[in-house]
Amino acid sequence: MNEVSQEIIQLSKAVHEDVIGYRRHLHQNPELSFQEYETSKYIKAQLKKLTIPYEEVANTGVVGIIEGKKQGNGKTIVLRADIDALPIKEENETAFASQREGLMHACGHDFHTANLLGAARILQQLAHTFSGKVLLLFQPAEERVPGGAKAVIASGILEKLGGTISAVFGLHVSPRLDTGQIGLCAGRFMASADEFYLKINGSGGHAAEPNRAVDTIMVAAQLLTTLQQVVSRKANPLMPSVLTFGKIIGNGAANVIPDSVWLEGTFRTMDEEWRKQALKHLEEMVYGTVKMLGATAELEIKHGYPMLVNDISLSQHFKSSIIKHFGPAHLEDVPQWMAAEDFAYYSHKYPSVFFLVGIKNEQQRVQYGLHNAKFDLDEQAFLTAMQAMTISCLDFLENEHG
Amino acid sequence: MNEVSQEIIQLSKAVHEDVIGYRRHLHQNPELSFQEYETSKYIKAQLKKLTIPYEEVANTGVVGIIEGKKQGNGKTIVLRADIDALPIKEENETAFASQREGLMHACGHDFHTANLLGAARILQQLAHTFSGKVLLLFQPAEERVPGGAKAVIASGILEKLGGTISAVFGLHVSPRLDTGQIGLCAGRFMASADEFYLKINGSGGHAAEPNRAVDTIMVAAQLLTTLQQVVSRKANPLMPSVLTFGKIIGNGAANVIPDSVWLEGTFRTMDEEWRKQALKHLEEMVYGTVKMLGATAELEIKHGYPMLVNDISLSQHFKSSIIKHFGPAHLEDVPQWMAAEDFAYYSHKYPSVFFLVGIKNEQQRVQYGLHNAKFDLDEQAFLTAMQAMTISCLDFLENEHG
Amino acid sequence: MNEVSQEIIQLSKAVHEDVIGYRRHLHQNPELSFQEYETSKYIKAQLKKLTIPYEEVANTGVVGIIEGKKQGNGKTIVLRADIDALPIKEENETAFASQREGLMHACGHDFHTANLLGAARILQQLAHTFSGKVLLLFQPAEERVPGGAKAVIASGILEKLGGTISAVFGLHVSPRLDTGQIGLCAGRFMASADEFYLKINGSGGHAAEPNRAVDTIMVAAQLLTTLQQVVSRKANPLMPSVLTFGKIIGNGAANVIPDSVWLEGTFRTMDEEWRKQALKHLEEMVYGTVKMLGATAELEIKHGYPMLVNDISLSQHFKSSIIKHFGPAHLEDVPQWMAAEDFAYYSHKYPSVFFLVGIKNEQQRVQYGLHNAKFDLDEQAFLTAMQAMTISCLDFLENEHG
Amino acid sequence: MNEVSQEIIQLSKAVHEDVIGYRRHLHQNPELSFQEYETSKYIKAQLKKLTIPYEEVANTGVVGIIEGKKQGNGKTIVLRADIDALPIKEENETAFASQREGLMHACGHDFHTANLLGAARILQQLAHTFSGKVLLLFQPAEERVPGGAKAVIASGILEKLGGTISAVFGLHVSPRLDTGQIGLCAGRFMASADEFYLKINGSGGHAAEPNRAVDTIMVAAQLLTTLQQVVSRKANPLMPSVLTFGKIIGNGAANVIPDSVWLEGTFRTMDEEWRKQALKHLEEMVYGTVKMLGATAELEIKHGYPMLVNDISLSQHFKSSIIKHFGPAHLEDVPQWMAAEDFAYYSHKYPSVFFLVGIKNEQQRVQYGLHNAKFDLDEQAFLTAMQAMTISCLDFLENEHG
Repeated sequence: MNEVSQEIIQLSKAVHEDVIGYRRHLHQNPELSFQEYETSKYIKAQLKKLTIPYEEVANTGVVGIIEGKKQGNGKTIVLRADIDALPIKEENETAFASQREGLMHACGHDFHTANLLGAARILQQLAHTFSGKVLLLFQPAEERVPGGAKAVIASGILEKLGGTISAVFGLHVSPRLDTGQIGLCAGRFMASADEFYLKINGSGGHAAEPNRAVDTIMVAAQLLTTLQQVVSRKANPLMPSVLTFGKIIGNGAANVIPDSVWLEGTFRTMDEEWRKQALKHLEEMVYGTVKMLGATAELEIKHGYPMLVNDISLSQHFKSSIIKHFGPAHLEDVPQWMAAEDFAYYSHKYPSVFFLVGIKNEQQRVQYGLHNAKFDLDEQAFLTAMQAMTISCLDFLENEHG
Repeated sequence: MNEVSQEIIQLSKAVHEDVIGYRRHLHQNPELSFQEYETSKYIKAQLKKLTIPYEEVANTGVVGIIEGKKQGNGKTIVLRADIDALPIKEENETAFASQREGLMHACGHDFHTANLLGAARILQQLAHTFSGKVLLLFQPAEERVPGGAKAVIASGILEKLGGTISAVFGLHVSPRLDTGQIGLCAGRFMASADEFYLKINGSGGHAAEPNRAVDTIMVAAQLLTTLQQVVSRKANPLMPSVLTFGKIIGNGAANVIPDSVWLEGTFRTMDEEWRKQALKHLEEMVYGTVKMLGATAELEIKHGYPMLVNDISLSQHFKSSIIKHFGPAHLEDVPQWMAAEDFAYYSHKYPSVFFLVGIKNEQQRVQYGLHNAKFDLDEQAFLTAMQAMTISCLDFLENEHG
Repeated sequence: MNEVSQEIIQLSKAVHEDVIGYRRHLHQNPELSFQEYETSKYIKAQLKKLTIPYEEVANTGVVGIIEGKKQGNGKTIVLRADIDALPIKEENETAFASQREGLMHACGHDFHTANLLGAARILQQLAHTFSGKVLLLFQPAEERVPGGAKAVIASGILEKLGGTISAVFGLHVSPRLDTGQIGLCAGRFMASADEFYLKINGSGGHAAEPNRAVDTIMVAAQLLTTLQQVVSRKANPLMPSVLTFGKIIGNGAANVIPDSVWLEGTFRTMDEEWRKQALKHLEEMVYGTVKMLGATAELEIKHGYPMLVNDISLSQHFKSSIIKHFGPAHLEDVPQWMAAEDFAYYSHKYPSVFFLVGIKNEQQRVQYGLHNAKFDLDEQAFLTAMQAMTISCLDFLENEHG
Repeated sequence: MNEVSQEIIQLSKAVHEDVIGYRRHLHQNPELSFQEYETSKYIKAQLKKLTIPYEEVANTGVVGIIEGKKQGNGKTIVLRADIDALPIKEENETAFASQREGLMHACGHDFHTANLLGAARILQQLAHTFSGKVLLLFQPAEERVPGGAKAVIASGILEKLGGTISAVFGLHVSPRLDTGQIGLCAGRFMASADEFYLKINGSGGHAAEPNRAVDTIMVAAQLLTTLQQVVSRKANPLMPSVLTFGKIIGNGAANVIPDSVWLEGTFRTMDEEWRKQALKHLEEMVYGTVKMLGATAELEIKHGYPMLVNDISLSQHFKSSIIKHFGPAHLEDVPQWMAAEDFAYYSHKYPSVFFLVGIKNEQQRVQYGLHNAKFDLDEQAFLTAMQAMTISCLDFLENEHG
């Protein structure tokens, strides 16, 4: 552990209480995706207090800028936090529980945002130790397709403020890792996620006269069994893939064949080329099945986020920094995760690392999963998170790797 | 055509207007199955007027008795009419349209009942021409399982009033046959009908973790494809059989596997032994499928009426009478019918014939099917129906066949 | 029973022994479809002996002519017998067992042929009792598609010799009916039969890399489950239909996906319009399934005989004749039969009746089914068969019905 | 690169020609699994020549022993080569092509064996540089279940000769990597492989009477579609799993339902617990399906090798050694491989690394895959293979890691 490491530890402890305050304020005031107006104001107010310049982006997003004061041809790094909350009614009864009925920071974005403000304060203090720029990206709308990342990238603000972007770091709290732990999965990490909305139209009739109807329930059943082959036969067994239909509504009666059946499902995988092929297989099976059985289909494919890939080389760098700073016992190789994240968009454009920060503390009975109405987190984890964010950032800025 | 035939024609014409009156009264005052209180009173009032003795049965049923006055060891014949209406809101605007909101004689039972009153008047006039007894059975609750026929039979009233029952005749109006036509299908005529209510219980979960859930939608899909084999492989191709599921509700979401799926269906066929086997196949496929895929099932089989068989020998007799009386052009061989009828219960206990009477008259725009809110019928058909009922009855009473 | 009936009984007894002789000769000398050269010669020799004029047709077929000698505008009736044998090695050890290795009259065509020769002798004796013509049609190649009937009809010989054909009668021995019994099913009686030969081409590969192959076994499995819907959903439940695949060969190995799968099947039903639709459904399901799963199909549909329909009115006439002659106990209503027969072609062009003649005699241990290597028959049945053939023929010729 | 590295390079070049000679001799004299008698003699002769002591194991296996001469508490490392060939008829026309009709070293075991002899010579020369023992394990019968590894382990010879085994290294030639490259996949690397032999017994019959038969082809089709769910629904999407049936034989005819259907398939995955569960799912689906459809099953599961796991820590050590010796460009992260290897048994008992050695050389047209009758390899790869084997061995023996 070097001198900067030591300073980071000191500084993180110094701001910890404030950061907890930021988080609790945000937790009390959750806002839905694309509507983070008060959240945005709060972030800007804090940055102003810190005299960190910023610009607005994507309606409710904010990008703060910290410039290194050291001489040199510095690189630009983006540190990203997502800021939106969920339409979930909180069931926790803490003093700082959500004050907005039906809305809740149940996915830890309050932590992500507060942590980035804390990291900003540390980096500001250490500006003399690095050359280059750090962009503090407070991104709206991660929870809802099309997500905020796409708009941020499309706006060009990152390049405008930072020129060539050398790396993007992001993090997510993890209820499966203990406080103090950092998790990383180099390479393919999170899944692409697409959704299907399918109406199969046939023609209803009396149950005793199937020949005069087109039995859409049987069309659906046949289709569902055929679609298993997308995963069981068409996918490379080494490529994580999942195709699920979670809704089927064929609402006739015991003796009445319904006119149509409604289906909803999702496909997730970890390769963009295969994702396209798989959706094509699905379309062919849908249209092929309905046609051969005399029905028609209205299929809407709602494309979600792409898969998220952690840059192999940047991951290596990140791991070295973490091991050096925390010791090897605090870094865990985590498995791939079939969830989706719009951080993925950055990962396709810039060398990126998206890592996990443990927030589990069984003594505190912090035990509920993400999106659970009782989700909570161990605020001691801010120390780990701020340090991980800043040390990997500074190491990278001052290191030959970039 | 013999002398009795001639008399029947005269008498049917004589009572025609009254019978139309009965029917219109009944049509204006429809009552649901098992609740035919006013209908029952009306029938009894008419029988009283005709001085025809009667007994009550099955709550709202009535059995009138006409005894032949000719010497001899007469047989007993039952003439059956069903008297209940349907929960359908009539859309006809005739002067005698239903006066009870949401209830309607949309299946012609008003016709059946009025017709039997008319036939009674004719038989009363011709009592000197036959020996034996005619039981006029006004049966409640044909439209709703378990039906009224079962209770009538169980009551023993037919045997009590008539001793050994030699034949039962019943009829149904047919919107597919022209007025003036009689339809018969000897042997297996109408279907048994059973209904299924099935809940498949698995365990829900996130769409991306099918391995931690039991995907009940896929259990259902697999089951539905397997169940096709009941008809396609297990049934004798010569035995009409139909298995349909008209409802499927699996109400998760695009990314949520639901805990359970609800299904409703029906099985119809024309052989009681095969019916039992088929239901056993169904049960085995349901329980076999859910078990091997890790789910459980709650299956309710609601047994409906059995298949209806027209006694071959009595059909032959009936046909001869009809041809002799109306001429061969008025008798049509009609195909089997996958609908169900509680007349079926009589057909399993007594030699029975259930025939069709045409009520279609395109000039009158009588064009809607049974159970349609615009169903209507040609009242000229009463002449055919009364004559067919009485001539076949009298022929049989006086004929060596019985 | 009238005078002609009495004479027919006498005459049938008189020729019985000779007819048994004919049959045994034919039984010893079976010939395959389209190759009935010696059989044809034998028939012609017998007709010559009887001084019955004849013409040849369809290579090995023979049509004898008997003209009624009574005055009047006589009709023409065709009596048809099929003459070919099967590629079955006989396992009976009677004195008259097949003398041709691997060939056998295992379907009773020896009986049909001998019986028609016997009927010819009776009709010749009774020629003074009728006006009109009887054509004795000895038809080749019933056992093998495309069958001999098609060629006979196409040749025009029936019209050339007989003018307008008023009726065609044919019979088949039945091991399910006792000797002395006649069976008839009016209306739709026997099935159309088409065969499929299907090759599904995909691309083979290692079992662990299904994504690099097209798994034809799974294409076939999916197709077979889908095809169940032809019978279970597309067919009218009242229309006998059966679709069976009896052969599937996918010959890879436990760890090798094969390049292709071979399937063979058959479809049988009793309505020509539905037959066409069903085959279209099958084609659509085959091509739809293979396409959507990335395979291709080579489908050959080998059309067999059409369904066979017994003319309703002619059936009525036939029944009357049989009942009058034999008494009602000797006539049985037999169920429809899913087997196929090229007599069907006549039934689509002329009023036709194809009836069954019982040849079962349990005391004689005549107990094996058609096409069985141990099939045998009770030769007493010739009396019934000759009488049935001649009485229905003569009745029809002299009756107003024709 | 250190001094030992330099020596290894020298020594590998010095023995290269001899090693090529060993390989060509073995290539000319291939022997099947469990029958490697001459191969075993040859190995023993070479070891004797080198004065390396050895013991026999598992009938045709050989274990040579090299003891380090340096002082210290040395560890024991096993270097393993498999020695058997395949029943494939070689199509190469080299001077050293197989001289045994129908047998061929088409999987590179000749290379593995020759390479281990070469490595032995290097290690013998460097015995003064290390303490501890190296066991040279020439293992029979990798190509055929149950494999030779199981017997080797069961014999206890490794512990007898070496005490506690600290590491086992093995390698396989890879036609997908260029000569000069080393491939490694840390953690789960290769698949378990089990095979199924399944007979579904029903009862055959005529295609037109499915109700009198049990249609085993349709039982099989239904089963195959259901079994897709093992991979598509029961497996964790992150766990590589493949279930394939490569053979299906249902040998009736177009119009004959066969008595039984024969199926062969395989299941491969990379987790022993899930493997057990998956096989249980398969059994339940097989027995559940046949039972509910009226058939029975004879299922034989032939267990193959377990999954192969490269020890994470030993892999890290191996990578460091390789990078240090060859430079990072020569080490490739290779994906998981769904093939099976009995080296897996060592990997479950001892810390093990199984790595790949590139043998592709497009200029030499070395382009065919493993098990191909034209498989060949670039003999320059011996330099890489010998160096990799020895450097990682020596590094590990002298390194704190062990």
